[in-house]
Amino acid sequence: MQQLQQSFSVNYSYGVFFTKHLFELTNPYLRDFLASQVAPGYTKKILVIADEGVISKHPALPEQIETYCAIISGFQLAAPVIIIPGGESVKNDEALFYKLADTIDQYGIDRHSFVIAIGGGAVLDLVGFAAAVSHRGVRHIRIPTTVLSQNDSGVGVKNGINYKGKKNFLGTFAPPAAVFNDSHFLTTLDIEDWRSGIAEAVKVALIKDASFFDWLEMNALPLAEGNLPAMETLVYRCAELHMQHIGGAGDPFESGSSRPLDFGHWSAHKLEQLTNFSLRHGEAVSIGMAVDSVYASLLGMLDSTAASRIVRLLEQLQLPVYHPLLEMQDGMPSAVIKGLQEFREHLGGRLTICLLKAIGQATEVHEMDVALLNKAVENIKSRYANS
Amino acid sequence: MQQLQQSFSVNYSYGVFFTKHLFELTNPYLRDFLASQVAPGYTKKILVIADEGVISKHPALPEQIETYCAIISGFQLAAPVIIIPGGESVKNDEALFYKLADTIDQYGIDRHSFVIAIGGGAVLDLVGFAAAVSHRGVRHIRIPTTVLSQNDSGVGVKNGINYKGKKNFLGTFAPPAAVFNDSHFLTTLDIEDWRSGIAEAVKVALIKDASFFDWLEMNALPLAEGNLPAMETLVYRCAELHMQHIGGAGDPFESGSSRPLDFGHWSAHKLEQLTNFSLRHGEAVSIGMAVDSVYASLLGMLDSTAASRIVRLLEQLQLPVYHPLLEMQDGMPSAVIKGLQEFREHLGGRLTICLLKAIGQATEVHEMDVALLNKAVENIKSRYANS
Repeated sequence: MQQLQQSFSVNYSYGVFFTKHLFELTNPYLRDFLASQVAPGYTKKILVIADEGVISKHPALPEQIETYCAIISGFQLAAPVIIIPGGESVKNDEALFYKLADTIDQYGIDRHSFVIAIGGGAVLDLVGFAAAVSHRGVRHIRIPTTVLSQNDSGVGVKNGINYKGKKNFLGTFAPPAAVFNDSHFLTTLDIEDWRSGIAEAVKVALIKDASFFDWLEMNALPLAEGNLPAMETLVYRCAELHMQHIGGAGDPFESGSSRPLDFGHWSAHKLEQLTNFSLRHGEAVSIGMAVDSVYASLLGMLDSTAASRIVRLLEQLQLPVYHPLLEMQDGMPSAVIKGLQEFREHLGGRLTICLLKAIGQATEVHEMDVALLNKAVENIKSRYANS
Repeated sequence: MQQLQQSFSVNYSYGVFFTKHLFELTNPYLRDFLASQVAPGYTKKILVIADEGVISKHPALPEQIETYCAIISGFQLAAPVIIIPGGESVKNDEALFYKLADTIDQYGIDRHSFVIAIGGGAVLDLVGFAAAVSHRGVRHIRIPTTVLSQNDSGVGVKNGINYKGKKNFLGTFAPPAAVFNDSHFLTTLDIEDWRSGIAEAVKVALIKDASFFDWLEMNALPLAEGNLPAMETLVYRCAELHMQHIGGAGDPFESGSSRPLDFGHWSAHKLEQLTNFSLRHGEAVSIGMAVDSVYASLLGMLDSTAASRIVRLLEQLQLPVYHPLLEMQDGMPSAVIKGLQEFREHLGGRLTICLLKAIGQATEVHEMDVALLNKAVENIKSRYANS
């Protein structure tokens, strides 16, 4: 036998820009970024796909984008802004995926062109996937418009669509060419979406940064009530911690089994699914974090004062900490808790759950005690009933 | 404005093993590889997808695979060997792609399991794509069974399917976990498929390695007539050069516009498409190389003796060097030559064509002289008519 060994590294690099009113003619950031991508001798194309929900709040945006792009030399807008529906359900819509592939084909968008997606996490995931697999990878710029996408998914490296009810079953790891977080979009969010996005900031503070948690406690009231400067600070710090995790942990494309950013997520994913996504992702994560924090305190891993601070912060942020679907049914574990087994399969056979040893400090466990989980649920339920 | 910069590298590494009778119980290579991938505490799954054409020539293979896999500790075969059709047309079959995704889902194949594909390049491309996008990337082992896939596509990093008639429109760059080249599969190929695979070896010799070209000239007769030891030498050297190019050129996922492995390919792709793939890929590449070699000699870039040696070697290998679709139609450039424009778009607006300065030495040009191309075609046609 003979053997050849292949070995190489691929470098990925992208900027995440924090700005306001990105498409005002005086705003240089997108224009400057594109100028850095110009190739001598030919005109690159830009295809803009925007979330209907965003356009309904910002009806002048398509025209503004067309005006802005018209004066970027070396680039041309390949088509008028294409508007698609938003929200999680678009990730179930295979026809929409193919419509995007058709659009990329129809307008001759190649591997040197840019697809720009403007919208919430679902639109970014769908458009990102379509771009990632068209021509084996068209360059992709993300303009996230929600708190959740600006501080978490939008600055990361994943995309995907749902398939036969399985969340993100089809997808890739594909870093964006650039990300532009425009805080003006946050001002037109429903208050529930605004608050829901804060859950990921609480999560990342809990597993990585105790002083950020302290800051969240101090700013809980303005954050819950829609204060933009507080939110801008939150989004920046949360995005920074998220990006450090992806870039610094040595496994950006998750080839190992460790997923320490998934705190509170095993039950959250199941809750979202069981409620047909009527529960927002951040709301479900808030519930999941409350359950796993109280569970860790019952286990003796986390001190009970810390668990109480966590649940209290979530409540101050007006995020839910409990859901009836967590309760035992006729003496059997709830459907959510039964979901642990599915999560084990998703991870490749060995359960890995992120729990807290302290605020700002996470660890991993490979077993969950179902009786203790039920006790944690009961504990939160009684708090909830008394609040 | 604030800005965060993300930057990281991802390391990829995989072995390409050259062996014979991979699934005989005494053959340790696949077993040893899998043993190196065992994780303590749980059993990983293996899902085997095989090309119908291969199974028809090797009907005992599924049983042999099941016996072989049964004794690998830490692994289990998730399902009996799954047999799918082979050949380029499977890449047009979206339903088959979804069937593979369903199979991966149904048998609980996760990111730590292995999907093994056995077959020609089309099956490897299809299965590789399905694995690459399921769960954002299931590990994938390739067992190429044709000369072309063993010496070229199977040892590389691309996968893909056709979409609405566009070759490889949907796909990704996703390095395999390992590749096993079993030369016994080559012994049951049709002689046309055997010869067609040699074209990629001629190509890589022409652009990278003059002494390999000399070796091909000396061994043209045994190679054309089905001599296995000669073919094993060819496959190894061609795979090695191909892998060096991918790993050594600094752009394994082709983010730049340079594609120097594509010598002879701009017209080959178009010829394949225009003949509905009745022309084999290697046959089309052979024609493409003949045209571009004669073109380069007419341009004064390549000396005419070298161009003649190239055309003669292809003829000795019993590969075609001419096709009527190259000819001008009513004084207009042929459909193949008109395809230059499409190729320009595919590359992102700027034409980049690989031409030869000498045997073993390639360069890039950004323009093609259509009149001179027609002259090259005429030149080959007259040679062809006289031969």
